[in-house]
Amino acid sequence: MAYIDLGNDIPGIRGLLAYRPETAGPLGELAEVLLRGDNSLPRGERELIAAYVSRLNECVYCASSHSATAAAQLAGGAAQVEQTLADLGTAPVSGKMKALLDIAGLVRVSGRMVSEDAVAKARAAGATDVEIHDTVLIAAAFCMFNRYVDGLGTAVPDDPAAYVAGAQVLVEHGYRAP
Amino acid sequence: MAYIDLGNDIPGIRGLLAYRPETAGPLGELAEVLLRGDNSLPRGERELIAAYVSRLNECVYCASSHSATAAAQLAGGAAQVEQTLADLGTAPVSGKMKALLDIAGLVRVSGRMVSEDAVAKARAAGATDVEIHDTVLIAAAFCMFNRYVDGLGTAVPDDPAAYVAGAQVLVEHGYRAP
Repeated sequence: MAYIDLGNDIPGIRGLLAYRPETAGPLGELAEVLLRGDNSLPRGERELIAAYVSRLNECVYCASSHSATAAAQLAGGAAQVEQTLADLGTAPVSGKMKALLDIAGLVRVSGRMVSEDAVAKARAAGATDVEIHDTVLIAAAFCMFNRYVDGLGTAVPDDPAAYVAGAQVLVEHGYRAP
Repeated sequence: MAYIDLGNDIPGIRGLLAYRPETAGPLGELAEVLLRGDNSLPRGERELIAAYVSRLNECVYCASSHSATAAAQLAGGAAQVEQTLADLGTAPVSGKMKALLDIAGLVRVSGRMVSEDAVAKARAAGATDVEIHDTVLIAAAFCMFNRYVDGLGTAVPDDPAAYVAGAQVLVEHGYRAP
């Protein structure tokens, strides 16, 4: 049960989006552009940034949902996602992705934690300015989505299959409001 | 100087919005709906929530900008804003606003900090479910905006007059991308 009467029993952010279509529009559009729009970062890697930040923020719904969506779009599947979220040091991702995930982890704590040095390391590992920009904004956006979902006490499915099924819908249809 | 080459020297979030119009669209629309859309919470009080969260996040650009925009739309002006941000306990705002700002402060730390008790207090002070929803989402959104602005090292004007002038533009024209 969410802290407010949503008038629906849809779990996680989807119940909130159905409750308040005025804000669902720009929120869905933002997720669509950041996670699925034209970009030199593959969709699976952008979902991995979202899952990484959500896991660190202990947002079970978002971490489960975006881990499943990353797994569905990365060659290494769920094992690659789990290993990355468990230990960035030994994560089976490129040096560029490690540097970008490092920036995302700093953004999660505070925008003020990001340093020129962290940005220089990502650039040295091959990241473009747009990739650095989008990494910061994806990490920042999930600091919003995580707080929105948990701050209103939304329902969190226990069954992992629910997130796998949800990921298939997201991979096929995206984040825009229907 | 921002950490990436924005191709412009516009300070704060406006430089980022000009750099990446693809994300500027939904970000501007989200701010417009949350801070200026139809709502039983006056615009000045919604800007006060944005300023309060930004001040706690130590985002100088956002705190200055939204303090000025709140001051321009609240009867008590800049003094009311400064007293509220300095000490919520003695803030010259309604009991309902105090309870909503208390929720915003919890969301800022983590969505998981918000309790049924904090929500019940706001409701007992007269807050509606939509007002509670929007307070949580405004606070969450500024946890994004603050991280976006500081995480990319954007320029921060020193002159308070720059924020007062910016507030007049926002009050008149709003947040949508031009």
